[in-house]
Amino acid sequence: MEGANCPIPNKHNEQIILGHGSGGKLTQDLIRDFFFPSFENQILAGFNDSGIIEWGNLSEEYQNCIHRIAISTDNHVVWPLFFRGGDIGRLSICGTVNDLAMVGAIPLYLTAGFILEEGLSIHTLENIIASMKDAALEAGIEIIAGDTKVVEKGKADCIYINTSGFGVIRDNIDISGANAKPGDKVLVSGTIGDHGIAVLEARGELGFVSDIHSDISPLNELVSNILNVSKNVHSMRDPTRGGLATALNEIAKQSNVCIEIDEIYIPVNPAVNSACEMLGFDPLYIANEGKMIIIVAPQDTDVVIDCLHSHKYGKDAAIIGEVTAEPAGKLLMRTSIGSRRVVTTLSGELLPRIC
Amino acid sequence: MEGANCPIPNKHNEQIILGHGSGGKLTQDLIRDFFFPSFENQILAGFNDSGIIEWGNLSEEYQNCIHRIAISTDNHVVWPLFFRGGDIGRLSICGTVNDLAMVGAIPLYLTAGFILEEGLSIHTLENIIASMKDAALEAGIEIIAGDTKVVEKGKADCIYINTSGFGVIRDNIDISGANAKPGDKVLVSGTIGDHGIAVLEARGELGFVSDIHSDISPLNELVSNILNVSKNVHSMRDPTRGGLATALNEIAKQSNVCIEIDEIYIPVNPAVNSACEMLGFDPLYIANEGKMIIIVAPQDTDVVIDCLHSHKYGKDAAIIGEVTAEPAGKLLMRTSIGSRRVVTTLSGELLPRIC
Repeated sequence: MEGANCPIPNKHNEQIILGHGSGGKLTQDLIRDFFFPSFENQILAGFNDSGIIEWGNLSEEYQNCIHRIAISTDNHVVWPLFFRGGDIGRLSICGTVNDLAMVGAIPLYLTAGFILEEGLSIHTLENIIASMKDAALEAGIEIIAGDTKVVEKGKADCIYINTSGFGVIRDNIDISGANAKPGDKVLVSGTIGDHGIAVLEARGELGFVSDIHSDISPLNELVSNILNVSKNVHSMRDPTRGGLATALNEIAKQSNVCIEIDEIYIPVNPAVNSACEMLGFDPLYIANEGKMIIIVAPQDTDVVIDCLHSHKYGKDAAIIGEVTAEPAGKLLMRTSIGSRRVVTTLSGELLPRIC
Repeated sequence: MEGANCPIPNKHNEQIILGHGSGGKLTQDLIRDFFFPSFENQILAGFNDSGIIEWGNLSEEYQNCIHRIAISTDNHVVWPLFFRGGDIGRLSICGTVNDLAMVGAIPLYLTAGFILEEGLSIHTLENIIASMKDAALEAGIEIIAGDTKVVEKGKADCIYINTSGFGVIRDNIDISGANAKPGDKVLVSGTIGDHGIAVLEARGELGFVSDIHSDISPLNELVSNILNVSKNVHSMRDPTRGGLATALNEIAKQSNVCIEIDEIYIPVNPAVNSACEMLGFDPLYIANEGKMIIIVAPQDTDVVIDCLHSHKYGKDAAIIGEVTAEPAGKLLMRTSIGSRRVVTTLSGELLPRIC
């Protein structure tokens, strides 16, 4: 698969050298030639130690209905760098955009911090940056500050990317993992496990060829649509590392409620199911990068599901369960054969460097 | 020197394993046992996908005189992790605090993103976190969001830390690398090169034993004091990677002015000078982590120098030159023997992984 292995620069390719991280001329060349053309915007062009946001303009834009700011950070160390449906560049934008969206924020600005391994091919870096640019455009965010460090060959794995995000939360929004209430419905925006299995396939660890694509997507537009049709969304979370089971466990504990889900309603791509069966994995623990859990008051379930189904990133959404009072802090699953079992948080490591 | 080499965990030490980056139970344990106790605050305790800042409270605190927000990001890959005068933890806080302070912002919140190498001793991580906590307290900032990833042994170098920062800029402040004007005076807040040489010594590359301490310090209080006594500070920059020469070149280019400095006025610790002479380095290019350049209108030079001298991080401050019109974009230095030469931006790499 293209790019599944660390691209080895040949004599025709330029490579990253330690000098690109010196802070001097070579760093400036890298910024001028690669980062600026892709991420160009007025704030970045200020070329100061920090990007400066004109809050005055923002608050006008949002008509003084914003008094909260959301801030998040995420390191991206996925391996391999490229896989079917995405790459570390798209992941680095969507991961942080989604973290902001999950607290009901409108993502506006991201920072990008690169750790490059000496010897990384410039061509690979260009492809990753192009992918970041596309994802940033799709998500409607701007990259307003950055940093590049270079470490010696063997001290990283081609490239690691940190993105940190800045978003604003409208005053009438109150979304938190602590807000789930008994009676609420539990929705998931689509099939689970696609990202983890796509990455595993790119590693050559699947043992067969599938057409599974990673689901990496920016969910902020979908979230915005949902919050426009319902004022009764209580919790949202994107089930990334640790998968659906871990994210639902977190909400059950934070809200001190029980979450009960039905195995038969959980959407899983048949190819993902087959892969999981062969490898002995449970799709409930496999990472997703373009899916979200929505916990909503029962009277709004239909409008939210309709809203999900009308968006490309929510077309396979399903109601998978509900919130109950007891046993508090637990995730229960009714299995396809009718029994009920406790589903715990992921313990140990399933798939290292999945995001 | 203690900690100069990657601490090798022995059987009595707990180590970081891949599961600590799973997003599941082990990640939660790490956060609960190590990060939360050190970085505890109300926002972090929300335990959501993003930290949420109550802007309403902020804007009241600053009496509606704030309409701009500063955002910055920095990866820290310094090697070794510990050296005389500091470590990667203190660096990771001060680096980003100073980037915010250099645009005249009041730093308020940081995020922290960790990339840990499998096998890192938990004891080492504890020491680094403790150092971050101390520096955060000194700088008066809070860490409100975080992320931890673990990569396989040999895919990082113990620990890399990204911090991203959020600060606010009062309305009457306008500091930029583009604001230097002919006639302005050029000040530096203290001796240059201490950080770079201290790290070099910790690497065992100095060839003799010195008592040089890294200058890693949060400069936000000093900046606040300066901006209280002068409304005519035009540019500030911390000369980190690339050193004083590179930072002054950046300002000369951004402001389209010439900066002329006098070699004899540039404060250099004699031990740093000796080390540079032995190693063939120029202190003008050596990294600093607790120093700043201030470019100020001539009538305010005295109040700013007095203000610097009254603060522990500015006691060795000096006026080192002035801004002229021509040749625009250049840094000139009058040498100790009276000649004048152009000093360029650092080209190539002097000291990899210095910050």
